[in-house]
Amino acid sequence: MANSEFGYVRNFEQPDALPPSNWIVVRIDGRGFTKLCKKYEFEKPNDRRALDLMNAAAVEVVRSFVDVVLAYGQSDEYSFIFHESTTLFERRAAKLATSIATAFTAEYCMQWPTFFPADQPLARPYPTFDGRCVCYPKRKILRDYLSWRQADCHINNLYNTTFWNMVLKGGMSNTEAEQALKGTVSADKNEILFSRFGINYNNEPLIYRKGTVVYRSYERNSVQNGEGSRIEAAPPTSKTQLEKERKRKQKATVAVEHVDVIGDAFWEAHPYILASKGGDSSDK
Amino acid sequence: MANSEFGYVRNFEQPDALPPSNWIVVRIDGRGFTKLCKKYEFEKPNDRRALDLMNAAAVEVVRSFVDVVLAYGQSDEYSFIFHESTTLFERRAAKLATSIATAFTAEYCMQWPTFFPADQPLARPYPTFDGRCVCYPKRKILRDYLSWRQADCHINNLYNTTFWNMVLKGGMSNTEAEQALKGTVSADKNEILFSRFGINYNNEPLIYRKGTVVYRSYERNSVQNGEGSRIEAAPPTSKTQLEKERKRKQKATVAVEHVDVIGDAFWEAHPYILASKGGDSSDK
Amino acid sequence: MANSEFGYVRNFEQPDALPPSNWIVVRIDGRGFTKLCKKYEFEKPNDRRALDLMNAAAVEVVRSFVDVVLAYGQSDEYSFIFHESTTLFERRAAKLATSIATAFTAEYCMQWPTFFPADQPLARPYPTFDGRCVCYPKRKILRDYLSWRQADCHINNLYNTTFWNMVLKGGMSNTEAEQALKGTVSADKNEILFSRFGINYNNEPLIYRKGTVVYRSYERNSVQNGEGSRIEAAPPTSKTQLEKERKRKQKATVAVEHVDVIGDAFWEAHPYILASKGGDSSDK
Amino acid sequence: MANSEFGYVRNFEQPDALPPSNWIVVRIDGRGFTKLCKKYEFEKPNDRRALDLMNAAAVEVVRSFVDVVLAYGQSDEYSFIFHESTTLFERRAAKLATSIATAFTAEYCMQWPTFFPADQPLARPYPTFDGRCVCYPKRKILRDYLSWRQADCHINNLYNTTFWNMVLKGGMSNTEAEQALKGTVSADKNEILFSRFGINYNNEPLIYRKGTVVYRSYERNSVQNGEGSRIEAAPPTSKTQLEKERKRKQKATVAVEHVDVIGDAFWEAHPYILASKGGDSSDK
Repeated sequence: MANSEFGYVRNFEQPDALPPSNWIVVRIDGRGFTKLCKKYEFEKPNDRRALDLMNAAAVEVVRSFVDVVLAYGQSDEYSFIFHESTTLFERRAAKLATSIATAFTAEYCMQWPTFFPADQPLARPYPTFDGRCVCYPKRKILRDYLSWRQADCHINNLYNTTFWNMVLKGGMSNTEAEQALKGTVSADKNEILFSRFGINYNNEPLIYRKGTVVYRSYERNSVQNGEGSRIEAAPPTSKTQLEKERKRKQKATVAVEHVDVIGDAFWEAHPYILASKGGDSSDK
Repeated sequence: MANSEFGYVRNFEQPDALPPSNWIVVRIDGRGFTKLCKKYEFEKPNDRRALDLMNAAAVEVVRSFVDVVLAYGQSDEYSFIFHESTTLFERRAAKLATSIATAFTAEYCMQWPTFFPADQPLARPYPTFDGRCVCYPKRKILRDYLSWRQADCHINNLYNTTFWNMVLKGGMSNTEAEQALKGTVSADKNEILFSRFGINYNNEPLIYRKGTVVYRSYERNSVQNGEGSRIEAAPPTSKTQLEKERKRKQKATVAVEHVDVIGDAFWEAHPYILASKGGDSSDK
Repeated sequence: MANSEFGYVRNFEQPDALPPSNWIVVRIDGRGFTKLCKKYEFEKPNDRRALDLMNAAAVEVVRSFVDVVLAYGQSDEYSFIFHESTTLFERRAAKLATSIATAFTAEYCMQWPTFFPADQPLARPYPTFDGRCVCYPKRKILRDYLSWRQADCHINNLYNTTFWNMVLKGGMSNTEAEQALKGTVSADKNEILFSRFGINYNNEPLIYRKGTVVYRSYERNSVQNGEGSRIEAAPPTSKTQLEKERKRKQKATVAVEHVDVIGDAFWEAHPYILASKGGDSSDK
Repeated sequence: MANSEFGYVRNFEQPDALPPSNWIVVRIDGRGFTKLCKKYEFEKPNDRRALDLMNAAAVEVVRSFVDVVLAYGQSDEYSFIFHESTTLFERRAAKLATSIATAFTAEYCMQWPTFFPADQPLARPYPTFDGRCVCYPKRKILRDYLSWRQADCHINNLYNTTFWNMVLKGGMSNTEAEQALKGTVSADKNEILFSRFGINYNNEPLIYRKGTVVYRSYERNSVQNGEGSRIEAAPPTSKTQLEKERKRKQKATVAVEHVDVIGDAFWEAHPYILASKGGDSSDK
């Protein structure tokens, strides 16, 4: 057959399965969002509509990829956490990264009209997102990853909030504000915000200060059917059970919260999110 | 700073730059397109609107990624060829694959209403595409890759054309047609098409038999300004030249053709497509 | 300079640093040892001199690579475990594998005359070993790796002991013995050994049944200076401390034991071997 | 079986086959040879015995690995070139690098007494070599790699020859010589050698200036049986033919030469060394 002469080219595909027993983070980042912000006149320092759209897109991605245990987003980035035991796409890196990134992109484009006015329809170049997989071998390190993103959110937001108040309310030029902030620490920026603009940073909306956590919530169900605590008691083994489990997850409420994930409180309140599958041995 | 405590997690990102002096193919494939075909009642064996949409999306991707020298598509897949000398995204595999795949996805979703009727708007799950990078170390092997995809297009289309004629016009069930075609070779299928349905396969539209080639065409310009033959004579070196080159490419006509790429004719007619950059040494 | 014209070829070297916070196993295997066994008439089923030579080589490798926390050997293979926190050679896989494999090979060749008679000097082809790195993300999985090798040792040794007794004492041909053992389970082999040859397998030498564990032993020191329990209390931080630590390890007694590593007893008796460095967080 | 419980650990081994149709270079480097030079009082700037030992070891490695088409060595390093079509060890990187490195190490250790006096036997730490694989996608780039190493040999040898003459004959301290050579170009060093020490650098032994090339030479055979030019005419296909080919290679004379490999002369005189296997398509 004509095909067989050329089939050898398949041998150039390199395997890219990620190592087992590692948490997989797929982080996506908006491509060229600085230009996009200007084009659609996003509000500064934060555009609530743009963040709501990011979160709405993330909710649908979490809903459709049942092996994602949690997602965390801020600014124009989102991190999707696959359970360390996932076998989705045989853990192939390219397939995981492109599937998540294109699903997010499709949602972002299609939901745009829900969040932005009709006189601001999407025009080319359309919003797109690059993505990559990173493996974290231990639960503790995965949590440090999430802490890193949330700390980054805080640092950037404090800076941006101060900067844009100096520019928009304080009448400074961008360069003047930049100069004025050079070398300042958090306390300095808090002080500037409070003394010059009457803003108590800690009263700023949580969505800006903490970013957004998206996860499947079983709490409401638990209350209703009283079986919440047994949900992860035994890993599903048969095919029927796995399918049942998948459907259960697809129907689960997807929670969207702006909470601290650096401390232990969130994790202690939702122990099932990072729970081991199939026994307690996987992280010892 | 709070961030520094967690910054170590960055060390878990693995480098993924593809080796220099290799042609990079980013192939994307529709995810779950069998279901999509049913949902929107795509015509069998080929839905012209769906193929036109694929090609329209590919044209925009080629236009915006100036390092793509050619793209080839058939069915729900598209291959984008980056020149072996590209340094886009420092040749990082994840960035290349996700950028192409999300750009294609965005175009596919946004251009959908241009090709499908208003009573068939996109509904969830939205169309998405997975993608991967493959490196080809020599021009000859890259051409064999394209031949492989085009031979695959031919084989599938001959089968599908015969199968669906047997079902739609011949009144067979899917299972009956499948059984009848088991073990047949190309000549058998050609004969079935001709004797039973009066179809000369070679008169079927080229877009179905050959798939689609998309590339930047400099011919028209050449005629106009008489400098076509010098286009690749010297590689751009300075930053200004590179920027000029990029703009020239973005403005170039993007050709969409349904031609044979297995033989030499196409390549001899467009020698600049796979031409070396910066001297003739790169493929010796 | 002449060199700069060609220096670009360095860009073809791909980075190969192994991900942080993973235990690194370098396993080496004798190349073509079946032929070697015949050439030097190794005793069947086990040649004590050959095993002693393997162990003597391993001791020197463990002594000189202070980041190796334990080695396990059986037959013509040896696994060297690097602590998950090692930064030796920046964790580059090729450098780790080749350094260990060549150090072992040099020791094996140079120590050969100590274990084999003068009328059996090494002749070409000289003994060599291939090697590879494998990453294990958790202590539990690393222990399962060691259990896998030790279980393999047991299974092979039970088979070989039975097989060679049937051949050497039972007068069977190799083929007859092979046939007779087909489909037998452990109990069958134990029974054959006992009833036909009066051998209680459990009384066979431990070195054959369990393989060999090599590790740095701090017990003797501990008894002498009473500080054993504090050895890993704080990770060394300054350069001087690190150097001191390295010297301490180089001077430590290297223990060679034929003990069970599948159960917990060995690990509980030597908790420092797999202890975390720098705090207790690394495996949570 | 006990083993099956632990067998899952095999899934942590990552595939490492190098991409097809790339020339594979395994370069090995002496580990800690600065210390070794001092310990055995190697002569400066070049120790002929040490170089002869390196070359003798390389000859045996080339002889036993028939897929190595050429090796190039200088100082304490050696590069072994595998034909781009090799399938040895399924092109697995770790296996290739460790097999070459341990074979070289064994030869180096075992042949030591042939080149060094009996009162300088090898003592621990024994000489070892690290190694790595690098892929080169085109013949031209492979040649540039070899040119890079030979240019490096020249640059280092010119420097070292000048430096050590200044120290050993010129009575300078190491620091003084180093200072004096700072910023000098080749012409300066040639001048220093000639005017101060009466040395015409171009008359220095070729082995020091060019390094060493090792390859299978078919010339003598050709003269004898007149079939030299047909040697690579057709690739061996059947198993018997392959085995015959392997034996022919093992018996071939291994040439050891100190010649220029930067220019074309060497390659034109030995076209079979980098010739394609199985037709001329592989490098187009």
